[in-house]
Amino acid sequence: MPNNGITSPAPASVAVPRGLAGVVVTDTALGDVRGREGFYHYRQFSAVELAQTRSFEDVWHLMIYGWLPDAAESAAFAARTAALRVLPEPVAAALPALAGAGAGSGPLAGLRSALSLFGAARGFRPLYDLDPDQRREDALAVAAVVPTLLTALHRLAAGQEPVAPRADLSCAANYLYMLGGCEPEPERVRAVEQYLISTVDHGFNASTFTARVIASTGADTAACLVGAVGALSGPLHGGAPSRALDTLDAIGTPDRIDPWIRERVLAGERIMGFGHPVYRTEDPRSHMLRGIAESFGGPLVDFAIQVEGRVEAILAELKPGRELHTNVEFYAGVVMELCGLPRTMFTPTFAAARVVGWSANILEQAADSKIIRPAARYVGPPAPEPVPTVG
Amino acid sequence: MPNNGITSPAPASVAVPRGLAGVVVTDTALGDVRGREGFYHYRQFSAVELAQTRSFEDVWHLMIYGWLPDAAESAAFAARTAALRVLPEPVAAALPALAGAGAGSGPLAGLRSALSLFGAARGFRPLYDLDPDQRREDALAVAAVVPTLLTALHRLAAGQEPVAPRADLSCAANYLYMLGGCEPEPERVRAVEQYLISTVDHGFNASTFTARVIASTGADTAACLVGAVGALSGPLHGGAPSRALDTLDAIGTPDRIDPWIRERVLAGERIMGFGHPVYRTEDPRSHMLRGIAESFGGPLVDFAIQVEGRVEAILAELKPGRELHTNVEFYAGVVMELCGLPRTMFTPTFAAARVVGWSANILEQAADSKIIRPAARYVGPPAPEPVPTVG
Repeated sequence: MPNNGITSPAPASVAVPRGLAGVVVTDTALGDVRGREGFYHYRQFSAVELAQTRSFEDVWHLMIYGWLPDAAESAAFAARTAALRVLPEPVAAALPALAGAGAGSGPLAGLRSALSLFGAARGFRPLYDLDPDQRREDALAVAAVVPTLLTALHRLAAGQEPVAPRADLSCAANYLYMLGGCEPEPERVRAVEQYLISTVDHGFNASTFTARVIASTGADTAACLVGAVGALSGPLHGGAPSRALDTLDAIGTPDRIDPWIRERVLAGERIMGFGHPVYRTEDPRSHMLRGIAESFGGPLVDFAIQVEGRVEAILAELKPGRELHTNVEFYAGVVMELCGLPRTMFTPTFAAARVVGWSANILEQAADSKIIRPAARYVGPPAPEPVPTVG
Repeated sequence: MPNNGITSPAPASVAVPRGLAGVVVTDTALGDVRGREGFYHYRQFSAVELAQTRSFEDVWHLMIYGWLPDAAESAAFAARTAALRVLPEPVAAALPALAGAGAGSGPLAGLRSALSLFGAARGFRPLYDLDPDQRREDALAVAAVVPTLLTALHRLAAGQEPVAPRADLSCAANYLYMLGGCEPEPERVRAVEQYLISTVDHGFNASTFTARVIASTGADTAACLVGAVGALSGPLHGGAPSRALDTLDAIGTPDRIDPWIRERVLAGERIMGFGHPVYRTEDPRSHMLRGIAESFGGPLVDFAIQVEGRVEAILAELKPGRELHTNVEFYAGVVMELCGLPRTMFTPTFAAARVVGWSANILEQAADSKIIRPAARYVGPPAPEPVPTVG
């Protein structure tokens, strides 16, 4: 319990880099990104290796419980989370209204509303009032239901009936099933699953930080997640895999690659799908996703690889000395296109994976009793001035 | 435009106090809290003086535009914001579903969903894509509609029809009108208005910080506000004016004050309504609200003043050396009770005022192009370990 907040002295002002860059807010055992090495990990395991060798559910278990499940734990966890996919009736009833009203601000706004409603319908209580097991239950419930919410909102917005989840499918297979209404091909399921695993967590990004700030107030899990979804929807957060694909469309044909890229680089424009604030070498997610794309093959993949090569060459020529490579957006977009996902679902699919990382971060933050409450420096006119009376 | 994020070097790790206490995230011209002086201000004006001399709309104008309006500006702003009180039809249509599903997590969860839906229904676009005038339009739209959303959700949950807003009433009067369905007494309107003004902003608290983190990603205004509402719902954020009143009820009669308080203080429990993490002297909001309560008079006010005196005396005796006074919760609860607000609406009423401060903070943050993205320190087992295959 807080002791009336009176024991801690008023903190002295501490100056730090803009945007809190490099400021260590917390310790974490969830993972890390080593930008200079082109490497990131969940817990103590390489994220890319996990994507190549384990199921999405196993990695989810790893993030929430701290260890990779054995075969029995894996089956039990998959069954337990599959049972959580069904929407509570009041949420299912409200979704058409959310889908109808939400078109203007994009699919993440719909997810934001739906997750908020889901938490309320489930009667989520403040993290502060729950024990660790109860918090984990809420964390599993939200991550299990996000694919159901997203696919239902997508179908409703397109005038289609939502497809009820199936408990006999894996998380990735069920996601594609609910989206398309028919059982997906195993090759596509595995490609999407690997993408989902590679997207579960990635350092202390703005949405993860948002979730942790809200969690530090002791608010409920849905309150934390709607904030995270809100932050993810910000253009500066960076995740918009469909933009890179739009670039491929805009270039159109191989002969147009060079003039199109040169014109934009010389105009100082950003080439979507290239560059990352942390990685100084190849983005390990990009490397893995290119491999998946190559396993599909076809003209889109060939063209993407050509564009990648020319962009890197032209940037090396025009911006020498900069390490600039494709980021996760570029081949993530290609892979999702190959798997038949509509482009409006690219960022929501990202969110369907990242909710696992957010919820693991919420659980970790909830174990810390200290609220995250920084300071600002007043730089306005000297106060107080006498309040003038009206005109 | 971000230049592929490649120019800034990876930041070095910076160690700071836990919870970012005292860490200056940003400059602000919106105001400040001077805890040791027992003083806080909006822009360059004493907040308490503003509450005593100006209208809520004038202070709202001050926060959004930076200056106190003259008589003509004041009338124009009041008329402009009054016209923004009406709910868009899709939101009005969805509110019964939100009110029905949202009972479990309290009224702020309902506001969270409703604000999210409102932003989507209005087609709010990312701050990043808007000019300052467009951002201000969204900021005014949300703050104008929050009282309508809150009162409609409250009435729907109680099985009553929502009351449509009236544009001929002030913001405070219209709020009480929509809540109760009849025109409120001027004395109550002014008391609530002074409370609302005193609650508009208060330094860099966790909900305000949350709104600014989300705004720093360039997300839309509703995305920022749902995060702020989520943070406000956290028990450690502290705002729950009804709890202090519950304490008065639990004590019951003057003869029970001393044993009740002593028992709890000796058990190390917190006495709701006392103590503040920033103020080392009397909370200036508490002082003002006590004055308002005294102007009403009556047994509740007399009892509250008795309890205040005894708690301060007993805490001075049992916890000597600590400056401990009533915080804003204590007399805010008394004033809202005197004004006929139901207790479940105390925290929502707080939110109806604070949304002005949040939106002013969002506008200020949106003018800064730097994302707020701190760091975490990995402290788990050394990575990478080889990924084990399934049991």
